[in-house]
Amino acid sequence: MPRRHLTSMMARYNGCDLLIDCGEGTQIAMKKVGWSSHSIDIMLFTHYHADHISGLPGMLLDIANSGRTEPILMVGPRGLQRVVSGLRVIAPELPYEIVFRELSEKQENFTFKGYDITAFRVNHNVIWYGYSLQIHRKGKFDVEAAKALGLPVQLWNPLQKGAEVEFEGKTFYPRQVMGEERKGLKVTYCTDSRPTAGIVEAAEGSDLFICEGMYGEPEKAAKAKENKHMTFYEAAVMARDAGVSEMWLTHFSPSMPDGRRYMGDVRSVFPEAHLGKDGKTRTFVFPEDE
Amino acid sequence: MPRRHLTSMMARYNGCDLLIDCGEGTQIAMKKVGWSSHSIDIMLFTHYHADHISGLPGMLLDIANSGRTEPILMVGPRGLQRVVSGLRVIAPELPYEIVFRELSEKQENFTFKGYDITAFRVNHNVIWYGYSLQIHRKGKFDVEAAKALGLPVQLWNPLQKGAEVEFEGKTFYPRQVMGEERKGLKVTYCTDSRPTAGIVEAAEGSDLFICEGMYGEPEKAAKAKENKHMTFYEAAVMARDAGVSEMWLTHFSPSMPDGRRYMGDVRSVFPEAHLGKDGKTRTFVFPEDE
Repeated sequence: MPRRHLTSMMARYNGCDLLIDCGEGTQIAMKKVGWSSHSIDIMLFTHYHADHISGLPGMLLDIANSGRTEPILMVGPRGLQRVVSGLRVIAPELPYEIVFRELSEKQENFTFKGYDITAFRVNHNVIWYGYSLQIHRKGKFDVEAAKALGLPVQLWNPLQKGAEVEFEGKTFYPRQVMGEERKGLKVTYCTDSRPTAGIVEAAEGSDLFICEGMYGEPEKAAKAKENKHMTFYEAAVMARDAGVSEMWLTHFSPSMPDGRRYMGDVRSVFPEAHLGKDGKTRTFVFPEDE
Repeated sequence: MPRRHLTSMMARYNGCDLLIDCGEGTQIAMKKVGWSSHSIDIMLFTHYHADHISGLPGMLLDIANSGRTEPILMVGPRGLQRVVSGLRVIAPELPYEIVFRELSEKQENFTFKGYDITAFRVNHNVIWYGYSLQIHRKGKFDVEAAKALGLPVQLWNPLQKGAEVEFEGKTFYPRQVMGEERKGLKVTYCTDSRPTAGIVEAAEGSDLFICEGMYGEPEKAAKAKENKHMTFYEAAVMARDAGVSEMWLTHFSPSMPDGRRYMGDVRSVFPEAHLGKDGKTRTFVFPEDE
């Protein structure tokens, strides 16, 4: 829309940028926030409707212009390679490789540069996915425990990094010197779906749940059902049931000019519901460091 | 760019909208001006670099949403059908037909719903085109001449529309009752090229000449030559040589933040040179009706 960009999300952690969906204009929205496309190491696609992927050729060329030569991992439902090949008719030559991972299971888990990623199927007419991103955080290194075991300082670091070490004929394990895993961070992203128990399960305990809210108007509940979308209230019920800390609504119908008028009712279901908007960003700090 | 759309042009005449090029965000730029995509009957492409066609899938879907069922003619250099098919991987089903006309000659002329269109090759590395659009205007119907010939009123209209008529065993021709062709309108569009005599010839006498001006900085003349683009001054020389009424510069390099500072020097070459900008529009009236 003239004054609203299409729905997408970018996560930035530890030098690795992760993009979910890339509709027409996503590269513009990204630049407005002041972010570069250079460090996008991974792109996740929920599905291949044009509003979620039409900006890909331009984004790929923008990344090429930024001088990137490292490969990019693309993840999405089956058909990903075919769709990307089609769109690349106008971006045939890129200075970096694209690696594909096509999803087909009900749920798939994988790790990528510090992100633990869960792809979960959502409920629309075809096989589409939502994504949970988790940053797990190890426990603290217990200096006293390491000393008590008599371990020399040079063996502390491999144990901290999760490796077993041998010393004086004995094997030592990380669990002997590491405290319990500390609370990490979790963000869940879900769009173009009816509400499902699977989404609630995937979103459980998220620090942020980004969820489609196609309609704010309560009378559009039937329309939402028919079109396989959700209302603000349905999203709020899922946020409450999943026990998330905060929810951002997004992917609004163009027919809804201003979602604010519905937020009172939405917050009576889930108080920490907020409207998404272009360029909305949030910096998360590990709870213990706050 | 965050605050500048990609280069494209739309002409609207007699209910028929004509679009030249469609980069990412062109549909947004068009909506900002308040125009609908519904009446785009013909699309002309200069070439298939992403910044000139990446917005096509979204535009096609927007047109579909507008309820159009009439066919659309697409015109462009060889490869058009292959490129459009690739991009349509995300817009496979449309309620209207697309008709293709692929160009290969040095110059091709055709008419479409009142537009006389000339496609002319420009000078880049591969076969690309610029376009001249002309609206020809017939002479006035000479009522006295028709009366003098003794023609009944019901035969006037077919003669006005260019048909021969038979009356009392004799054939009458439009030239017998029509005055000389009156001055029409001409707009020429040219981008991504070095200056050429062919462009000057095609643009001759245009009411408006829209021409790329990649660089305003005089010291970038060598760079323009190397990259097969033009400077503001080279465009101005062509505008002067072609005897156009007005020139709009467009397709600026992202490295040039403000072209205004060069316009004094440019206007010393061609006084009616102006910078293009997002949403710039101009309404032309047939000279005789002004």
